[in-house]
Amino acid sequence: MSPNADATPAVLRLGLLGQGTVGAAFEALVAQRADNIQALTGRRPVITGVLTSRSGEFAEILSSCDVIVELIGGIEPARTYVLEALKAGRHVVTANKQLLSQHGEELWEAARQAGVALRFEGSVAGVVPVVGVLTESLAGSHIERLHGIVNGTTNYILSEMARTGATYEQALAQAQEHGYAEADPVEDVDGRDAAAKMAILARLAFSTPVHIDQVAYEGIEKITTDDLEYARELGLGLKLLGTAERVEGGISVRVHPTFLYAGHPLAAITGPFNAVTIESPGITEITLSGPGAGGPQTAAAVLGDVVCLLHGASSVAAPTEELAIVKDVESAFYLHLEVADQPGVLAQVAQLLGLQGASIKSVVQKGLGDNARLVMVIHPIRESQFSAACELISRLDFLRSPPRAIRVIEEVFG
Amino acid sequence: MSPNADATPAVLRLGLLGQGTVGAAFEALVAQRADNIQALTGRRPVITGVLTSRSGEFAEILSSCDVIVELIGGIEPARTYVLEALKAGRHVVTANKQLLSQHGEELWEAARQAGVALRFEGSVAGVVPVVGVLTESLAGSHIERLHGIVNGTTNYILSEMARTGATYEQALAQAQEHGYAEADPVEDVDGRDAAAKMAILARLAFSTPVHIDQVAYEGIEKITTDDLEYARELGLGLKLLGTAERVEGGISVRVHPTFLYAGHPLAAITGPFNAVTIESPGITEITLSGPGAGGPQTAAAVLGDVVCLLHGASSVAAPTEELAIVKDVESAFYLHLEVADQPGVLAQVAQLLGLQGASIKSVVQKGLGDNARLVMVIHPIRESQFSAACELISRLDFLRSPPRAIRVIEEVFG
Repeated sequence: MSPNADATPAVLRLGLLGQGTVGAAFEALVAQRADNIQALTGRRPVITGVLTSRSGEFAEILSSCDVIVELIGGIEPARTYVLEALKAGRHVVTANKQLLSQHGEELWEAARQAGVALRFEGSVAGVVPVVGVLTESLAGSHIERLHGIVNGTTNYILSEMARTGATYEQALAQAQEHGYAEADPVEDVDGRDAAAKMAILARLAFSTPVHIDQVAYEGIEKITTDDLEYARELGLGLKLLGTAERVEGGISVRVHPTFLYAGHPLAAITGPFNAVTIESPGITEITLSGPGAGGPQTAAAVLGDVVCLLHGASSVAAPTEELAIVKDVESAFYLHLEVADQPGVLAQVAQLLGLQGASIKSVVQKGLGDNARLVMVIHPIRESQFSAACELISRLDFLRSPPRAIRVIEEVFG
Repeated sequence: MSPNADATPAVLRLGLLGQGTVGAAFEALVAQRADNIQALTGRRPVITGVLTSRSGEFAEILSSCDVIVELIGGIEPARTYVLEALKAGRHVVTANKQLLSQHGEELWEAARQAGVALRFEGSVAGVVPVVGVLTESLAGSHIERLHGIVNGTTNYILSEMARTGATYEQALAQAQEHGYAEADPVEDVDGRDAAAKMAILARLAFSTPVHIDQVAYEGIEKITTDDLEYARELGLGLKLLGTAERVEGGISVRVHPTFLYAGHPLAAITGPFNAVTIESPGITEITLSGPGAGGPQTAAAVLGDVVCLLHGASSVAAPTEELAIVKDVESAFYLHLEVADQPGVLAQVAQLLGLQGASIKSVVQKGLGDNARLVMVIHPIRESQFSAACELISRLDFLRSPPRAIRVIEEVFG
């Protein structure tokens, strides 16, 4: 489909529009991943032109690229550039939620007319692949309802209010300090950013046009710490939740503060994370979660779209690596010992563990007499060393049965 | 790419191999969704031949189809059929984890040689789109580690043991009763089923050949209720966890019972669900979860693959619907009232709610005197009715400030 497809050149030329947070992260990521992508797909992505407000000429960049990557944001000039690129037969990758939630039908129609791709995974929930899942994996399924936490700023603020008892203003200030909220956070906190994303998701889920103006939204500015406290007593946690669902033969698409019961798949999503739950009669529901839009995350989603253009519908690429299978890896361990109830037992066990470099993270002594047990968690250690320690421990005469060990995974994020 | 691509016929002819649980569910789903898929893609999927152990002729089915859908399972004759189909220029969709974890490279190479697609989303975690995410969305990213709960049977058994204190044998019997475990559960409970899936995921994540024989696995047969109880005191929950990670320049791929701390994204996955966490330096981590392999779920994944063949790399399809936007929808509500501390307050509020058809699910009375509050959750009711009730309540003279309301979502699954 690319202008040079017949010659299958070794390079995929990318014209980059916009060099802000996401654009700069994308440039860095392309440089870093070009070798791997070339190994995987046979073609090397190269940025052949960059348009910023101060430099570059759109027509020139367009004429010397295969794909336009639009990371300017906002409606104009992004809309004009994307339309021109599609009409000129270029694939377009964009992360522009405003543009798609207001002019999506015009742009998708232009792409169909030109027979080129318009990809936009980065426009919703950063690298959480909800666009791909709706347009591809679930394209054959009847979708009944979507719930989404699609704004990381507000989820961070609500999480902090619940966790620390901070007021809305305090939590917002903290979000700004940590870079989770912009200096002007209005579109995030009033729900409009989430509304744009829900318009896009609803369009894909229900195959019906949805404009952001059709999405009812409320923000979190009026939420009080009180509400969060009382709600906790009722077993509820608060999210700025987007909902898109079939109702009475039509659909409802809306964004507002919403309490979730603890068992809901989205209740556990805290901090600046995003998550979407997709419900379909045949499949019950699937949940996708991950970091919300940040520069590197959105750039990763945009690069994923670029790589998809290289793949086409073809099969798995040939292996690019011949990695060795490593057998002896590190792990933390749970260790359960049935022991005689006598002095010095823990000391001797700890000593044998120490000989192999294993150290105890936590330990519980349970039961008395014939029922005495030591239950402990061992800090990460190579499996061979842990096995050696267990072998030594199993010879201790106060052990009433062989040691029982199970691996333990620590929290990924602190 | 399909044999008849030039003529773009209105029908996509599917040759179905196998008519077991998944095959039968796939047949039903195709019949049910054919209209929608035709509206979306312009082509109608039609099953033009079915091969079972008792009827059908492979050569005949092959010659009269565009796509082979292989749902026989196991190695032979599935392998021979898939290879023949690919060599004959047919796209193939399969959900066969055994086949791909043992002969994947041979099959993917055959697909590349023939220039056709070999898709297999249904082979891992049913409709949880982890194959698509690894081969498409994250194809540009460097992946460091995957964790997966990829066997629903064992996750159900471990969840029940932890929840009810049942022994392994009791929980297994219960899983069989509910249809979450087969009559012969050996491959599930000994970890081999999960090992096959992890081999496939590791292959995709690291672009290096991985055979199931290179995956170390342990099952859950020896787990005792004791272990689960003591571990809970240490803040740990048990999963049969698959791990694929880069280690010392190579990789490690393994499956074994593993404790997770409560904060881990996979710790909350209970019952017959599957989930995969993908870690990458640029994006921290994303998590995908949903129902594990069941007939309808796997069939949905297989149909998603079929629809992807129709889509190609093209853009979003034109809208197929013009659904109305419904404004007045049902929701449960949290209602927070600051009231004077006097008799009959709750009764009057309840009466006004009842007039509009709203009923109270739970209520907490807080504080005394000038601090008295009623905090309650209202069962689902149309928003217009709830607003009308709030309007009536706001006129009560014992109210010290306007009613505060926030929507509530119930648990999706009980």
